[in-house]
Amino acid sequence: MAVQTIESAAVEARRRIRSNQWRGVTSGVAPGHVQANLAILPRDLAFDFLLFCQRNPKPCPLLEVIEPGSVEPVLTAPGADIRTDASGYRIYRNGEFTAEVDTLEDYWQDDLVSFLLGCSFSFETAMTDAGIPLRHQEQGKNVAMYITNIQTASAGVFSGPMVVSMRPIKREQVVRAVQVTSRFPATHGAPVHIGSPGDIGIRDLDLPDFGEAVEIKPDEEPVFWACGVTPQAVALNCKPPLMFTHAPGRMFITDQRDADYSVL
Amino acid sequence: MAVQTIESAAVEARRRIRSNQWRGVTSGVAPGHVQANLAILPRDLAFDFLLFCQRNPKPCPLLEVIEPGSVEPVLTAPGADIRTDASGYRIYRNGEFTAEVDTLEDYWQDDLVSFLLGCSFSFETAMTDAGIPLRHQEQGKNVAMYITNIQTASAGVFSGPMVVSMRPIKREQVVRAVQVTSRFPATHGAPVHIGSPGDIGIRDLDLPDFGEAVEIKPDEEPVFWACGVTPQAVALNCKPPLMFTHAPGRMFITDQRDADYSVL
Repeated sequence: MAVQTIESAAVEARRRIRSNQWRGVTSGVAPGHVQANLAILPRDLAFDFLLFCQRNPKPCPLLEVIEPGSVEPVLTAPGADIRTDASGYRIYRNGEFTAEVDTLEDYWQDDLVSFLLGCSFSFETAMTDAGIPLRHQEQGKNVAMYITNIQTASAGVFSGPMVVSMRPIKREQVVRAVQVTSRFPATHGAPVHIGSPGDIGIRDLDLPDFGEAVEIKPDEEPVFWACGVTPQAVALNCKPPLMFTHAPGRMFITDQRDADYSVL
Repeated sequence: MAVQTIESAAVEARRRIRSNQWRGVTSGVAPGHVQANLAILPRDLAFDFLLFCQRNPKPCPLLEVIEPGSVEPVLTAPGADIRTDASGYRIYRNGEFTAEVDTLEDYWQDDLVSFLLGCSFSFETAMTDAGIPLRHQEQGKNVAMYITNIQTASAGVFSGPMVVSMRPIKREQVVRAVQVTSRFPATHGAPVHIGSPGDIGIRDLDLPDFGEAVEIKPDEEPVFWACGVTPQAVALNCKPPLMFTHAPGRMFITDQRDADYSVL
């Protein structure tokens, strides 16, 4: 039999999800493959949202934008169906969460445009590969996320503050963490801030706006990266008549490898 | 008197152009500042064109997309006017070149969207700073450009082959040239091909499709970079009712510094 290649792990994961054989959080599934946050919006809002992402590449790193009405991510996962191949979806109407569903087939409209956005799994892998431990992973927690006073560049109807994720990094590894994540601009890239949380409007690291707080040891600095929650928050902020996203932790697995997005 | 800062050189250059005190090719003007190719299209085509650029970042590196109808590049040149501050413009109707003008003021429409795209000046500066000589600059020629058999990723109505520029690089400097240009993904970035022109559909290096041929010495390899002519060619290919561009060599000078776009 053929050796299972790294490519087929992503295809296999999507097939099992689509056929309802497996559902769950996708962290650690098909390792080495880039996983995507989803934001699906009506065509009327798509130009402004695409422009918002273009202006804010750190919180909104675009992996692919699917042709209006189409359901196949031809560039990052040819043959896949964006309505069925993530392991869970959320439906928002007029900016309000209304349902979590396994598939979008019953809700699809021909005017929808699907945005696939990079997530932090890729650079977290690169950091652990570089010997930089990640506290939230060690403790089995969700990463701590904070709403900052850093304003995104607005575009049309979309505007709002940047959300960041925080990872405590040993002082002696901070430079290496900057270097390693700088290589992945398509998955949030270099940190947006190091140290002093108050400078970016965070009053208490023990009270994250999303996720879970983690301990910061005396020999560590809090390091902040732009977070993929930003585009979702900004999009919902303008109360679109309809918006779909992936369910938290249940990302869309692409065929792309982390290394495909490394700039050096 | 205040010392003239590097920022003011760009503002000054745009002021002199706007007030008709100076017009000319912008190579070497306001050194260290990023210059932009312009493509200005009706709103109807803007989503597809933005998507085309997003899918083809090497030939179409977006520096800024101005809000529909607006004339001010608020992110890269606040206070500037895109209709008056490039040193020359071309007007195309239904894909045909109809006029070259000094200003777009008499031709402006409220549905127009302006795209500012990175050009190769930034990475050429980085290469010469790194001790890599550029033959076309030494010989006072325009860089040689070729239509390839590399297909761009199409988006809506936009599709077509990639155009590349070629620079002969000493074999011992090819690796360095890759490294140096990789740091500037916003201005075409790393080469798309090294050596063997036939592999990318170029039959004769002495017969460029645009620009001028240059000599390749025995100890040199031809190195190919994605070229900013690509988006113009692709846009005109679909015969938009109206399209404006900068005139060849007469770029729009932004306030951004080359270093702002270096990823490392």
